[in-house]
Amino acid sequence: MNTIREAGEALRGNKTTSVALTRQCLDRIHLLQPRFNAFITVVSEAALAQAARRDAELAAGTDRGPLHGIPIALKDVFETKGIRTTCGSRLFENYVPRRDAAVAERLEAAGCVLLGKTGMHELAYGVTSTNPHFGTIRNPWNPGHVPGGSSGGSGAAVSASMAFMAMGTDTGGSIRIPAAFCGTVGLKPTYGRVSRYGVLPLDFSLDHMGPLTRCVHDAALVLQALAGHDPRDHTSSPLPPGQYSPPTGGRLTGLRIGIPENFYFERVEPGIVSAVRQTASVAERLGAKLVSVQVPDIAGLNAIGRIILFAEATAAMEPFLHRRDEIGPDVLSLLDQGRYVLAADYVQAQRLRRVFQLEYNRIFDSADVLLTPTTPNLAPRIGETSVLLDGQPEDARLASTRFVRAINILGLPALALPCGLVDGLPVSAQLIGKAFDEATLLRIGAAIEDAAGGPNPTPPGL
Amino acid sequence: MNTIREAGEALRGNKTTSVALTRQCLDRIHLLQPRFNAFITVVSEAALAQAARRDAELAAGTDRGPLHGIPIALKDVFETKGIRTTCGSRLFENYVPRRDAAVAERLEAAGCVLLGKTGMHELAYGVTSTNPHFGTIRNPWNPGHVPGGSSGGSGAAVSASMAFMAMGTDTGGSIRIPAAFCGTVGLKPTYGRVSRYGVLPLDFSLDHMGPLTRCVHDAALVLQALAGHDPRDHTSSPLPPGQYSPPTGGRLTGLRIGIPENFYFERVEPGIVSAVRQTASVAERLGAKLVSVQVPDIAGLNAIGRIILFAEATAAMEPFLHRRDEIGPDVLSLLDQGRYVLAADYVQAQRLRRVFQLEYNRIFDSADVLLTPTTPNLAPRIGETSVLLDGQPEDARLASTRFVRAINILGLPALALPCGLVDGLPVSAQLIGKAFDEATLLRIGAAIEDAAGGPNPTPPGL
Repeated sequence: MNTIREAGEALRGNKTTSVALTRQCLDRIHLLQPRFNAFITVVSEAALAQAARRDAELAAGTDRGPLHGIPIALKDVFETKGIRTTCGSRLFENYVPRRDAAVAERLEAAGCVLLGKTGMHELAYGVTSTNPHFGTIRNPWNPGHVPGGSSGGSGAAVSASMAFMAMGTDTGGSIRIPAAFCGTVGLKPTYGRVSRYGVLPLDFSLDHMGPLTRCVHDAALVLQALAGHDPRDHTSSPLPPGQYSPPTGGRLTGLRIGIPENFYFERVEPGIVSAVRQTASVAERLGAKLVSVQVPDIAGLNAIGRIILFAEATAAMEPFLHRRDEIGPDVLSLLDQGRYVLAADYVQAQRLRRVFQLEYNRIFDSADVLLTPTTPNLAPRIGETSVLLDGQPEDARLASTRFVRAINILGLPALALPCGLVDGLPVSAQLIGKAFDEATLLRIGAAIEDAAGGPNPTPPGL
Repeated sequence: MNTIREAGEALRGNKTTSVALTRQCLDRIHLLQPRFNAFITVVSEAALAQAARRDAELAAGTDRGPLHGIPIALKDVFETKGIRTTCGSRLFENYVPRRDAAVAERLEAAGCVLLGKTGMHELAYGVTSTNPHFGTIRNPWNPGHVPGGSSGGSGAAVSASMAFMAMGTDTGGSIRIPAAFCGTVGLKPTYGRVSRYGVLPLDFSLDHMGPLTRCVHDAALVLQALAGHDPRDHTSSPLPPGQYSPPTGGRLTGLRIGIPENFYFERVEPGIVSAVRQTASVAERLGAKLVSVQVPDIAGLNAIGRIILFAEATAAMEPFLHRRDEIGPDVLSLLDQGRYVLAADYVQAQRLRRVFQLEYNRIFDSADVLLTPTTPNLAPRIGETSVLLDGQPEDARLASTRFVRAINILGLPALALPCGLVDGLPVSAQLIGKAFDEATLLRIGAAIEDAAGGPNPTPPGL
């Protein structure tokens, strides 16, 4: 039992308690922390106390909904009142916020039990999962490999059933990449759909908040709890949230799934290509129509994205840049590079971004969603800085972000969906949707997942 | 007869024709062009032909509304199909657009007759009304003084009754300053209220389009024709337009007019202070309540504005920067300076801008509008680069923009309202409103104007 849906049924059927679920998670965390280093902070006692309150509420007839009593974790970039929030950085090593991030507030209101804060790339900006301050996070499918980043601790925690859900943030793929490498579901909602209040900003116009879960149904439950306007985040959308929960065993009749002819299937690990194409076939058998589409110049869009990323990250971290010895060399180098981006180039990048958004949106005239690989490569080995694709070496970070980064620039919602294993490592398909149409992504993802037999497999031996 | 309202009544009462109105304007243009140089291009024959069509329409019972048959002019930055559009620059000296700007389209649909294109600062960015390519524009109140900029030709044309209305654009005061110096009404609507499609951008996030007219009632008629969503301008607001036309001889009971205690009455020409305070008294007699307000650090906001202005202008003009010998030295220097603004600083400026917007908006909890001087100084003499205020010299451009520039950064609507003469030169009050609340500005402006005896005076001898 490792999905929110199952746990919720068991809770309401008096087959378990929130305390039991919480203890089960804490036991796994303590067992597996030495192997995977998924957490920076664990709040065992607070979690058990909170779980006991949730049980008492339920016994007294107060049910906060599907997340009531469910133990979860937050990436250590979400501010948590009274619990230190390091952002994976020495700069915030001893920072104990006096407020909760909006996401923490909403999950608390929905009844979740907070287990702790997960590990991450330094400032969500580091190049590798080897955090210079908090150590190396490892992939539960193979501890010699990275879990992906920057939300690597969240990926590892959910993958190895240390939490029923862990929140991530995604500026250039940081939810979808660890979801892909760790074999979990990862949902990056539309820009503005989930409040960023109380999250250390990396890139004001690229940051998204979303869950990593064991199945698509769980991701829908979490989004339902998180979505909605927040006046404290001025980029928060005033649009009302959708109805996200998909049917179980649903059909896909009438839906058009776009398969890009260009870019997304170039220089991809062959096993990933076949797994994603097989996923497309499953969708077709469920009634969806597959349509070929051409996408705009995504490489150009990625180049624009780098200008925006560099400039905004440096602006965000400017108040701390004088504390150079507390910043790891990878991140410091990126932050320094950001100083040399010119404003006129940044303005041009933002203008071109808009042109690309309009161009990319035209795809949705002929397709309801796009289906692509999430990454062209499997999880790299720890320390590996380049990967081999089509016989050509490629920078591991550039390869891993190649299919996901542009979606942040476009602000569109995307779902990373596990779709098999290659060499014992997870493979992931990415569904990309229209702005604010998370419901269709979740509907398609759930139908495919249900047809494949439900929640995704667990790493061997775990 | 020089207001749209009067002309419209005369047209419908068969006391004049659009051809007669157009001929009257063309005669004045040809008479006064050598003295004031208000126009870059005059399209006499096309205007008379268009006027004849308007008369025929009206005779056949087709009435396009209050602007039907009214002769108007456009600043030479609005694209006009088949009519050259120079932007006051040698770069576009022979540019003949194949499309109409949205503003030109809407005015045409509303029945206006286009007389020609008015002179302006080079690229709407030059420092003086002495355009290096199209000569010096002069103030109809005193030809030794500037008309203000960058929409100086529009100010001169309306002031001297060469057109019933002329459109301007306002990036840092460019509608309100010429309105103030030439003694006309000038309306800068809320950012996003009037489409910018087909206008050479100067600063993507600061540009506003609006009319210069002889009275507030006319400004309301023009805004009614222009306001509304335009999908071709992605900064165009989806909000529906308001009902702008104010009553004649209206009262102001229940309205609160904020008078800033700080900033807006510091280092101001004494005659301007008394004229604006007298305007406040008129509003009070009409039933408005005057309330004292404190404004945030507008000098800081202006500093932020310069960073945004520099960076965006350079980005906008980047495709032309290699044609250096076709750009005047003032503008070239500003464009070159814009190259050295760093992206991280620009991002910070945009963030601080948002903080200021929220702070400034709080004023509107206690006041419906603010009343300030439009400029601290009278129209400077041609060639004068500094003005004397409180015995201190101040750069003429910085002084002229001191009270208006920040309003572009905030995106709020503002109305420049003539309120008397000092040393034979016009004085102007600025009404600043809540976003998208142009209706209240126009209501207050019209009530004050009507109480003062209607449309504003004409320069002596004209």
